[in-house]
Amino acid sequence: MTKRNPNLAKLKTSYLFPTIHQRKQEYLAAHPEAKLISLGIGDTTLPIVPHVVEAMEASANLLGTPEGYTGYGPDQGEPELRKKIASQFYENRVKPEEIFISDGAKCDIGRLQLLFGKEARIAIQDPAYPVYGDGSLMQGVSEIHFLPCLPENNFFPRFDKSLDVDLIYICSPNNPTGAVATHEQLEELVAYAKERHAIILFDSAYGCFIQDPSLPRSIFEIEGAREVALEISSFSKVAGFTGVRLAWTVVPDTLRFDDGSPIIRDWHRVMTTLFNGASHISQMGGLAVLDPQGLQETRAQVLHYLENGAILRRALEKKGFEVFGGVHAPYLWVDLKGQKSWDVFQLFLEKLHIVTTPGAGFGSSGEGFLRLTSFGLRPHTLEAAERISTFHFP
Amino acid sequence: MTKRNPNLAKLKTSYLFPTIHQRKQEYLAAHPEAKLISLGIGDTTLPIVPHVVEAMEASANLLGTPEGYTGYGPDQGEPELRKKIASQFYENRVKPEEIFISDGAKCDIGRLQLLFGKEARIAIQDPAYPVYGDGSLMQGVSEIHFLPCLPENNFFPRFDKSLDVDLIYICSPNNPTGAVATHEQLEELVAYAKERHAIILFDSAYGCFIQDPSLPRSIFEIEGAREVALEISSFSKVAGFTGVRLAWTVVPDTLRFDDGSPIIRDWHRVMTTLFNGASHISQMGGLAVLDPQGLQETRAQVLHYLENGAILRRALEKKGFEVFGGVHAPYLWVDLKGQKSWDVFQLFLEKLHIVTTPGAGFGSSGEGFLRLTSFGLRPHTLEAAERISTFHFP
Repeated sequence: MTKRNPNLAKLKTSYLFPTIHQRKQEYLAAHPEAKLISLGIGDTTLPIVPHVVEAMEASANLLGTPEGYTGYGPDQGEPELRKKIASQFYENRVKPEEIFISDGAKCDIGRLQLLFGKEARIAIQDPAYPVYGDGSLMQGVSEIHFLPCLPENNFFPRFDKSLDVDLIYICSPNNPTGAVATHEQLEELVAYAKERHAIILFDSAYGCFIQDPSLPRSIFEIEGAREVALEISSFSKVAGFTGVRLAWTVVPDTLRFDDGSPIIRDWHRVMTTLFNGASHISQMGGLAVLDPQGLQETRAQVLHYLENGAILRRALEKKGFEVFGGVHAPYLWVDLKGQKSWDVFQLFLEKLHIVTTPGAGFGSSGEGFLRLTSFGLRPHTLEAAERISTFHFP
Repeated sequence: MTKRNPNLAKLKTSYLFPTIHQRKQEYLAAHPEAKLISLGIGDTTLPIVPHVVEAMEASANLLGTPEGYTGYGPDQGEPELRKKIASQFYENRVKPEEIFISDGAKCDIGRLQLLFGKEARIAIQDPAYPVYGDGSLMQGVSEIHFLPCLPENNFFPRFDKSLDVDLIYICSPNNPTGAVATHEQLEELVAYAKERHAIILFDSAYGCFIQDPSLPRSIFEIEGAREVALEISSFSKVAGFTGVRLAWTVVPDTLRFDDGSPIIRDWHRVMTTLFNGASHISQMGGLAVLDPQGLQETRAQVLHYLENGAILRRALEKKGFEVFGGVHAPYLWVDLKGQKSWDVFQLFLEKLHIVTTPGAGFGSSGEGFLRLTSFGLRPHTLEAAERISTFHFP
């Protein structure tokens, strides 16, 4: 008899965003005239920039020629792409050989847990992107510590003697709170990991939204991080690649298991066994993103999204909401002053026709908050701000 | 202290193909003048057909327009693509809602194991594509039965009372033996699975190479399979998509765990949690493959590869080798009459400058065999056949 993996029963029955999608569809079915604005899922809306489109068209074209055709790519992804990532995103603090190109950060997070197995004790920020916890539970992990991130601790946990864990998931700029970890906070984190021989899984998928050069975009800007951290990142938000699919993970060759063996060796084994490379066309697109012209064009989009955040923030603040995030991050985290987040989600859906994400969907410390994204198109963002401004909140 | 997942230690240190690649590189470093022909890894070499290239260029172009831009796609992949797969590959024996589009069969195989957990007892053909076993070991599976596939059983195991397992990986047309399971063989398999409440994971990635309509291209051609099987398949070989990345898995809604819960529900949860969709451009390419023109153009390539197989087969047989496969499959499985496969691999590399795959790399029953692929370019295939024909084998 074929049994169900008992670990699956530990998950909530549905991943957050399909649930929201279903609520939206139900409302639309009953109110087909409603002009819903989606500020829920963090999905990009601006077209891919011209320089990158050209590169992807050219790549597709080349695949149709005997000279340009290519099948399976190099194990870790195109060497040129890894070189450019190392220089552009990391100022060569990491080596191209330590970078593994993939189709998505979500997929990498799922595979990363395989490195450590089910005995690892995990720490996760609360609220957090659901995949860290769900992915761990699926692998049979039984000890997960949720570290509350609230206004009173500036949305970043303290890492001190009271905590005893092996793996720490940290996302900065944070999804969903929009908080950016400071140098000091990450230094404390790295010091903790060194002391405890813990490993940090640092998610920098939103790093491009940091405009203040004094804030770290990568864990590898912190001294000593190469011995205690790996980093997951993505082209999804920096270049509108949510549908194109391109991401990477950095595993420093200095990162070790307790038995002294290099983690990068096992990661290579996992990736060559359970993955087969990101689309060649997507990789050529990623290369173009990192050209001077691509960098310029995509930077304009990031700034455009940040302006959306400022527009929404102003509208919400005028209505008396306290709003966190949205400055160096594409997410606004709205304090609901004691109201339940699914209630306010429903209010926004039914009365303002705005789809948001209820904070409770990201963990118990997310209760009482609502996430809005800056990723809407400008006209939709302005319209949403207008609806918020003219609505009489109870 | 962060421990290594103990399951990783159960794997051979390297996945097969990186090892072969390394041997090849070492030889080239010492003999830079050698003109190596690669008939090792099963990688396509013919350019993507024009109709599909046009579709992918158009898709990239559309992503650069406000009207055509799209981010994250639908949970299970583009509905039109799933509809066409259901009709073209399955004659609507499965429903579009039962199809999950992904970036690769390899990745799906890795995730599928999550459904069943480590207690599942697994049966794997021996020799086999290494990912079935490696993926299971990584998840902590401890009971794997290897079912020898040899000339004496026509490369297909018997499924009878002596076997007691929960999950059965079957690949047909087979990688590496090139054997195609008959209706009768698959009927016995399905009957076994019904009797034992076991589940079949059927890999049909090479189904398009079957030219004889009396041979089943899918497990779902067998009556009752919807209650006991899921199927993994891919665009890689049918359309040269090894670098483009596009695959799918079919999970019938009639497939259940022993507790009666539908497996498709958990697969949806796994896929929405640990995967984020195949590249939109690749999916539009896949749609074009299934157009009448795409079908015609890609079919010509499949036939071209099969002719390559016939050329290699003739050359090897003339030299006295017994050759299996290569007729309804892109792999030739050469009986080495007692010689060790890594030795003959090395002989082919050093003396004929042909890269092959040693049978032992696919399991202990692969010892004494050598795998050659039909995926070379025609001039290389002819040259390889010529080298074989003129070489004096010891």
